[in-house]
Amino acid sequence: MAPDHHRLADRQEISELLIEYCRALDVMDLPAIARVFTDDCEVEYGPEDRLRSKGSAGVAKSLERMWRWARTSHHLSNIQIAFDDHDRARSISYVLAWHERPDGSTATVMGQYHDRLVRIEKGWRIATRRMEMNGSDAGFTVNLHRTKRQGPPAGWVAPNIDAPVDGNLADKKP
Amino acid sequence: MAPDHHRLADRQEISELLIEYCRALDVMDLPAIARVFTDDCEVEYGPEDRLRSKGSAGVAKSLERMWRWARTSHHLSNIQIAFDDHDRARSISYVLAWHERPDGSTATVMGQYHDRLVRIEKGWRIATRRMEMNGSDAGFTVNLHRTKRQGPPAGWVAPNIDAPVDGNLADKKP
Amino acid sequence: MAPDHHRLADRQEISELLIEYCRALDVMDLPAIARVFTDDCEVEYGPEDRLRSKGSAGVAKSLERMWRWARTSHHLSNIQIAFDDHDRARSISYVLAWHERPDGSTATVMGQYHDRLVRIEKGWRIATRRMEMNGSDAGFTVNLHRTKRQGPPAGWVAPNIDAPVDGNLADKKP
Repeated sequence: MAPDHHRLADRQEISELLIEYCRALDVMDLPAIARVFTDDCEVEYGPEDRLRSKGSAGVAKSLERMWRWARTSHHLSNIQIAFDDHDRARSISYVLAWHERPDGSTATVMGQYHDRLVRIEKGWRIATRRMEMNGSDAGFTVNLHRTKRQGPPAGWVAPNIDAPVDGNLADKKP
Repeated sequence: MAPDHHRLADRQEISELLIEYCRALDVMDLPAIARVFTDDCEVEYGPEDRLRSKGSAGVAKSLERMWRWARTSHHLSNIQIAFDDHDRARSISYVLAWHERPDGSTATVMGQYHDRLVRIEKGWRIATRRMEMNGSDAGFTVNLHRTKRQGPPAGWVAPNIDAPVDGNLADKKP
Repeated sequence: MAPDHHRLADRQEISELLIEYCRALDVMDLPAIARVFTDDCEVEYGPEDRLRSKGSAGVAKSLERMWRWARTSHHLSNIQIAFDDHDRARSISYVLAWHERPDGSTATVMGQYHDRLVRIEKGWRIATRRMEMNGSDAGFTVNLHRTKRQGPPAGWVAPNIDAPVDGNLADKKP
């Protein structure tokens, strides 16, 4: 086992930090949101200026926009962390974010947070965050960055795989 | 690093315990569900008596109600754990719970488990569980506790952020 | 604490391996997908031959079929790992997999990966993978293995639990 034990304690702290953002956002605890970022952080959810903010206080202020939703639920998973040195790390995590408007209509986005993290005296903090969108349902219309996906080679033909060979679709429901 | 190494082994055991509940529930392995709770546990999913139960056998018995669904899938994430002392912990975790009725209609709820855990001779167990609901789709009608969310200050006005500045919605699909 | 410290470093490596599969699949990084499997792996997503493949190169090749989707998002959670010996492990993990066709229609499947893992010189790799489906929405029509679920005893009657006692459904939306 490596002397640094794969930095498991650091991984655990960073994971709970990323999760704390979600918990705080879903209850709109803006001071708690500010605490997961560095004082001079840079955050961008999309290419437009109105989706970028700087500083922990600035991020928390900008996320007041989440009040336009009546309810939200941010499900974080797929956390990958790599360390650049003792006090700096990069992570990618996935989020499934469900939002409900006051009129009951909903919007769901599935995306990735690409973060740079630094360790300050109080612990790990998010220094930069860039959100990318893997996809969304039709209800979600915010112009987030899109995840870059490798396309097929020229001339690629899709296989027929979505219907069972024996046509027993009626048997699909247990 | 702290002498207890941030109690990483305890965190791992508790995480797998919370996950085991989901796995067992989705295959309706009621004895396995009983094993994640203490003998004298207290569980409540909502404010009504019929959504409360006591004791590991009582919880497993009450969850027979899940047979009214033909299929379920409970996706657990966002696990946060804090330790009160050597043998007691509290955790919050998120669940995205999908349910399908025998007629094929579905119901999805997104919620949080707020648990107190204790270490008994056999390992960590859930002593108390309170479920809260961040939100749900229209198909889900069980009266769960609602997550408390901080509302906006008086006079707050929602920003216009859901349509791109340049109106290129047609460009949204890749 | 156990001498092997519950093999926490191995668990972390295996967890990031399972996550790497999802990340690589969503950006269609086929070489990265091949790297998470052993050279002689066996993978089956369903009972039909066209959903089975062998070898890391074979799996990557077969997953070219994912190009029939315009976008995907694979959210991994519920990772449980058990060790058979120093270099062999079994894991169950959950995936919520969202897919979007070029025409904008979508298909979501909720399932489980049942994996056997081995440690080779380069690290942990997936040796066998069997996917099971807990459920799906109507848009998903691939014939995956179904999760086996224990049914109710003869004569079981479903309780009335889906409507509030006091009938205040109108109060459900906050």
